[in-house]
Amino acid sequence: MRLRMEQFIKEQQTAIVATLAEVDGTPFKIDTWERSHGGGGISCILQDGNVFEKAGVNISIVYGKLPPAAVEKMRVDHKNIASPTGEPLDFFAAGLSMVLHPRNPNAPTVHLNYRYFETMNPDGSSQSWWFGGGTDLTPSYLFDEDAIHFHKTIKEACDKHDKEYFPKFKKWCDEYFFVKHRGESRGVGGIFFDDLDDKDPEQLFAFVQDCLKAFLPSYVPIIEKRKDMPFTPAEKEWQQLRRGRYVEFNLVHDRGTSFGLNTPGARVESILMSLPLTARWQYMHEPAPGSREERMLKVLKEPVDWV
Amino acid sequence: MRLRMEQFIKEQQTAIVATLAEVDGTPFKIDTWERSHGGGGISCILQDGNVFEKAGVNISIVYGKLPPAAVEKMRVDHKNIASPTGEPLDFFAAGLSMVLHPRNPNAPTVHLNYRYFETMNPDGSSQSWWFGGGTDLTPSYLFDEDAIHFHKTIKEACDKHDKEYFPKFKKWCDEYFFVKHRGESRGVGGIFFDDLDDKDPEQLFAFVQDCLKAFLPSYVPIIEKRKDMPFTPAEKEWQQLRRGRYVEFNLVHDRGTSFGLNTPGARVESILMSLPLTARWQYMHEPAPGSREERMLKVLKEPVDWV
Repeated sequence: MRLRMEQFIKEQQTAIVATLAEVDGTPFKIDTWERSHGGGGISCILQDGNVFEKAGVNISIVYGKLPPAAVEKMRVDHKNIASPTGEPLDFFAAGLSMVLHPRNPNAPTVHLNYRYFETMNPDGSSQSWWFGGGTDLTPSYLFDEDAIHFHKTIKEACDKHDKEYFPKFKKWCDEYFFVKHRGESRGVGGIFFDDLDDKDPEQLFAFVQDCLKAFLPSYVPIIEKRKDMPFTPAEKEWQQLRRGRYVEFNLVHDRGTSFGLNTPGARVESILMSLPLTARWQYMHEPAPGSREERMLKVLKEPVDWV
Repeated sequence: MRLRMEQFIKEQQTAIVATLAEVDGTPFKIDTWERSHGGGGISCILQDGNVFEKAGVNISIVYGKLPPAAVEKMRVDHKNIASPTGEPLDFFAAGLSMVLHPRNPNAPTVHLNYRYFETMNPDGSSQSWWFGGGTDLTPSYLFDEDAIHFHKTIKEACDKHDKEYFPKFKKWCDEYFFVKHRGESRGVGGIFFDDLDDKDPEQLFAFVQDCLKAFLPSYVPIIEKRKDMPFTPAEKEWQQLRRGRYVEFNLVHDRGTSFGLNTPGARVESILMSLPLTARWQYMHEPAPGSREERMLKVLKEPVDWV
């Protein structure tokens, strides 16, 4: 599974980067890096492009040893991880993560991450494993048809594997991507799941493959439709304020970012590639009654089931 | 002490806001707010001014009950707080906090906060009390003379009360305002202290008064000197990148911000008034060898004793 997941996310990274570079008309910058504690990754970044202000598509394949204290911490979210002998545990993690921040305020930011994690007994046999991930959409201005298309495409990928997945993982997504101190969601939803090991690994790998392959059909039609729409400076400013909220979620609440920043030897620039190129904080900004901005906020305060 | 601290920070807020409004040529917006759980505050904000991109001078006087769990949490940093009966503890907190983000990249951001905290026994007698606070300077471009002037002015205020304060609190400042995941300080230093109750409260109040009164002389000469210096778009962009780091510190590491955002009924807009109007994140930005930007980074990685 380790090698096949690695192979799969590499192929997907190449395919996604090729398509997005074509959408933008700008090539990505490709950085290959190594982790001193074991493993490495490939970061593909496009900055100040025609369509994307910042786009990052990153894969990482890391391995090494988890100290017992780290194992205990992870048990909170991952029921089966354990170090019975109290020794450090060998681990392997492979994942693809991506955040796209488009230039046009009518075009939504999108985030995606799929990962496989495994721990090994001293004899090399598998101790625990799981898949995790998801994808979610963060518009500054809401187009219902975009939110519906995005969710419909993901739902189709989920339904092929388990009819319960989509409703369960959409709810999990709304709960996870919640900016608690603002009382609002980060975006309009998508799916989120973690610690998924309740089926045969082959079945779950097939599920994750279909989810990841659904990304381009879920997002490219939206960006194509929105990237050249006219917009005003005031609309750009609203987008910048929403980007500020995105930063707040990622730095204050996102467990993945916090885990990454606290991992010794972590590559900070790859973790924080999720942050927008620019953001804005304005004291006590209030959208005008009846405005598109007000509608957006209303939906962020009361998550919608789009399909 | 409670009423006198309240009175003192109100006077200082008025004096500071009047001076900064004159420096900028723009009046502050003044918001008076109440806290549903007890108390309230006055937030003075200037946004998009001539000199300041964003300037916030805030006082808050809040009181109410601390649940035993909160008391236990606070004991980590505040040795004397205790609820012997296991009942919620009455508390009172009064403080002034301020962050100024100037427009000109040659002019430094400055932060200041002084506060008094007290808990009361059920019979109304004082259970524990302390002062905390400090001030620190965050330039995008380093002018040694500014860092020296700032520290010298604060040192004079400290030395009047205890010769050990300044070196001790400068060190504490360098340790506290450290962006751990970047391995660099937020700025060039200042002072920071907390849980200060090792002298007579009158003596410590006099010390805090002198520190706060030293603010205008420590900062106004610097902003006057830097506010009209010419600068290039590239210098503005570097400032924006440094503002991004400021956001990273405040949202990821600052215990005050985190405590505030997790306090039920907290006024989020007043807490996050410390964030800059605009900020920027650029993947793998590296200053040119021998540049002013490189010198700045070097000093942030190895704190300097300026006086």
